[in-house]
Amino acid sequence: MRAWRNALRTSGRALLGGLFFGLFLIGGPAEAAEPKRKVILDDDIGGLMGSPVPLLQAPDVELLGITITSGSTWRDVSVAHALRVVEIAGRTDIPVVPGAIFPLVNSEELTRRWEGVYGKLVYKGAWMNEEWPEGTIQSQPQYHAYNVVPSLKEGNPTTKPSPEIAANFLIRKVREFPGQITIIATGPMTNIALAQSLDPTFAENVKELVYMGGSLNPHQKLPSLSAEQFAREYVNSPRREFNIRWDPEAAKIMAHAPWRKVTMVPVDPSTGTELTRAFLDSLGKVDTPLAKMIVKTAEAGFPMWDEIAAAVWLDPSIISKSVDLYVDFETSFTSSYGDTLSWTADYRPGLGERPQNVVQEVDRAKLEALLHKLYAAPLRH
Amino acid sequence: MRAWRNALRTSGRALLGGLFFGLFLIGGPAEAAEPKRKVILDDDIGGLMGSPVPLLQAPDVELLGITITSGSTWRDVSVAHALRVVEIAGRTDIPVVPGAIFPLVNSEELTRRWEGVYGKLVYKGAWMNEEWPEGTIQSQPQYHAYNVVPSLKEGNPTTKPSPEIAANFLIRKVREFPGQITIIATGPMTNIALAQSLDPTFAENVKELVYMGGSLNPHQKLPSLSAEQFAREYVNSPRREFNIRWDPEAAKIMAHAPWRKVTMVPVDPSTGTELTRAFLDSLGKVDTPLAKMIVKTAEAGFPMWDEIAAAVWLDPSIISKSVDLYVDFETSFTSSYGDTLSWTADYRPGLGERPQNVVQEVDRAKLEALLHKLYAAPLRH
Repeated sequence: MRAWRNALRTSGRALLGGLFFGLFLIGGPAEAAEPKRKVILDDDIGGLMGSPVPLLQAPDVELLGITITSGSTWRDVSVAHALRVVEIAGRTDIPVVPGAIFPLVNSEELTRRWEGVYGKLVYKGAWMNEEWPEGTIQSQPQYHAYNVVPSLKEGNPTTKPSPEIAANFLIRKVREFPGQITIIATGPMTNIALAQSLDPTFAENVKELVYMGGSLNPHQKLPSLSAEQFAREYVNSPRREFNIRWDPEAAKIMAHAPWRKVTMVPVDPSTGTELTRAFLDSLGKVDTPLAKMIVKTAEAGFPMWDEIAAAVWLDPSIISKSVDLYVDFETSFTSSYGDTLSWTADYRPGLGERPQNVVQEVDRAKLEALLHKLYAAPLRH
Repeated sequence: MRAWRNALRTSGRALLGGLFFGLFLIGGPAEAAEPKRKVILDDDIGGLMGSPVPLLQAPDVELLGITITSGSTWRDVSVAHALRVVEIAGRTDIPVVPGAIFPLVNSEELTRRWEGVYGKLVYKGAWMNEEWPEGTIQSQPQYHAYNVVPSLKEGNPTTKPSPEIAANFLIRKVREFPGQITIIATGPMTNIALAQSLDPTFAENVKELVYMGGSLNPHQKLPSLSAEQFAREYVNSPRREFNIRWDPEAAKIMAHAPWRKVTMVPVDPSTGTELTRAFLDSLGKVDTPLAKMIVKTAEAGFPMWDEIAAAVWLDPSIISKSVDLYVDFETSFTSSYGDTLSWTADYRPGLGERPQNVVQEVDRAKLEALLHKLYAAPLRH
C-alpha cells in the first residue's frame, strides 16, 4: 500500500509539474514546488493534545477547517477547545465548524439500558456520569448537559465558530477541491455519515479518509499503570472502541461509503504509545505560546490515539505494521452494538463493506520525534 | 483458586480418613489411600487424539463414561471413534453414551444464511461442506449426512454404545455420586444443557466443570504454517470458537447453571501448543496397541485444544496463567452469535452469569511431558 501511495504521489507531482511528464516514474520537482496537502479534521477535541496541533503545525499541510462532533465531550465543549487551539496556534483563519451534538440513533438513555443487559461500558465520553467502577489515575470527562460549556484549562476562546453546519462544510469543500482533500476523523462518525447521506458523491470525491476508530485485537504493550487501566476497555471487549460505539450507525454508513482510500487507526497501535511526563518536560524549554500551553495543560498517561491518525497521514513511514481488511460495524442492539467487524477478502459477506488499510503497529520513536518537532516548531502564522 | 482447591482436597482426604480429623489442615493419609478421581468426558471425539486417552490412562482417574455430542463430526461418527478408543485402550468396560445429534436451536441451514449476512465461518465442523476459502494444510472434516458413519482410520468398532441417552446418563451418575464427579466437556454444550434443563439440581451436584470452549483474545504464538492457518479462526473474530458457535443456546444454559466450580479452557492457551511430528515420532518405539495406533493415525499440526482441558484437570500446575471472569455467550442471531462475553466483577450485568476460572496460558513442556507419559504408559486393563 505504501509503495503504491508513494507512486501515486510521485505521479501527482509530475503531472502538476507538466514539463516533467515523461519522467514521472523516476522523480519530480523539488519539495518547495509541491502544493500543500489539503486536509479537514473532524474531531471531538478535548484540549491541546490529539490531532489538531500536528495538522496546524505541519509546514506542508493546508488545514481547511476543523469540523466538530460530540464524543469524549459534548460538541460545544469541543468547539470551545478547537477555537482555543487555533487561537493559541495563531491560526484563527481556520474555521471551526460545529456539527452533530447527538448520534444518529444511539442515546445516553439507550446506553444505560444496554448496560443493564450487557454490562457496564468502560468509557462513555460525554455520557460518563459515574466514577470508573475500578478507579482510574487519569482524569475523566466532566458530566454535564449538552448545552453547558465549563471553563477550559487552556482558557476560554474569544473567537467564534463558523455559522455553517459541519456536514455542509465538508460537502462544500470537497466539491470545491474534488479528489484533493484528505479527511482525518478522530471522533465519532456522525458528521461524516451525515455528509455522505446528504451527498452520495461525497466519499468518492474525497482523496483519502484516515480515521481513529474501531478495535481488532489490542493487547497491553506498555508496563505503566495507565496502560493497564486503559486495557480494561479492550481486554473483555476487543472489538469495542468508543468513537464507533458512540454512533455505530454513523460508522456503518462511513464503512459502506465509496471512498477512494481508507486508513483505519484502531485501538491496536495506540497500546504501544503513551504521552509521558518526560516527553512533556522535553517541551518545557520551547518558547512558543503553543508549547507552553501544551506543557501547562496536557495530562500524561494517555495513549496517543488521535495523534497516530494525524501522524501516519503526515508520514506513513511511521506505520510499522498494517493489514488490508474489509471492515464493517455491528448495529444490532446486542452485546456487540458498535463492535468492529473485519474479514479477509475470501471471508467477507460482500454486502457493501469495503477494503481499509488497518494500522496495527507504529514506530513509537518516529511518532514521538515527529510530534515533538511539530509541537516545538515556531508558529506558522 | 488453586490454593483453594488444594485446601479442599486436603480437607476431603482427612474427612475420609476420620481419625485424622484434627489434623486436616496440615496433612492426610498417603496418596495410595486416595479414592480415584471420578470424571465423565462429554466430547465430539474425532479419533485417538484429544481428551479421551489422557483420562483413560491416568492411574488415579476413574472415567465413568464418555458421553457424545455432534460438533467436529456428527454424533454417530464420534460414537464410533469413542468405541474404538476404549477398545484399543482395552477399556470396553467404560460406557460410550450417545447424546445430541443436533444443536438446540442452531442448524446447518441457519448457519449458511448467517454466513450470507456476516461472512464465512472459518470452521463449521460437521457442516463443513466446502474447502477452506484460503486453503489449509490440515485435513478437514468429511461432509456427509448425520446418519452416515464412514470407515475410521483406526478401524471400525465391534462393540456397541450404551442404549442410554447422554443427558440421562449424566444426571444418573451425578445423582449416584453427588459432589464427586468432574465433567470435562470438550465438544459443544448440548448434552450438558439438556442435563441441566432436565434436572435443575444437576450442576450444583457436579464437583467441577472443565470445558474447552470460548475465546477471549488469542494471538498466534508459534511460527508454523499450521499455527498461522488456525489463527484465521480468531484474528478477525477473537470471541468466536467452534464448540460454542455450534450451539450457542446450550452454552448460555451451561454458563448460567449453578456449578460449584468452572474452569474454562478457551482457544487462548491452545495457541502455544501444537501436536508435532517429533512428539509423535517419540512415541514410535512404545510397544502398546494404543501408542502404535496413535502414531499410525494422528495428524501433526493441530493445537492441543482438548488435551489441555484434560491435562489441566489432571495436573493444574500445567496452568501458567489464568484469570477469574464472569462469562456468558451471545445468543442473538447477529454477527456475534455464539461469541464469548466476559466481564470482571465490577462490569458484569448480573443476570445470572457466573465466575469461571479462565485458563490463558499453559506450560507447553509440562503438558507434553504429561501427555507423553500417559500415551506411552502400559494399558490399565
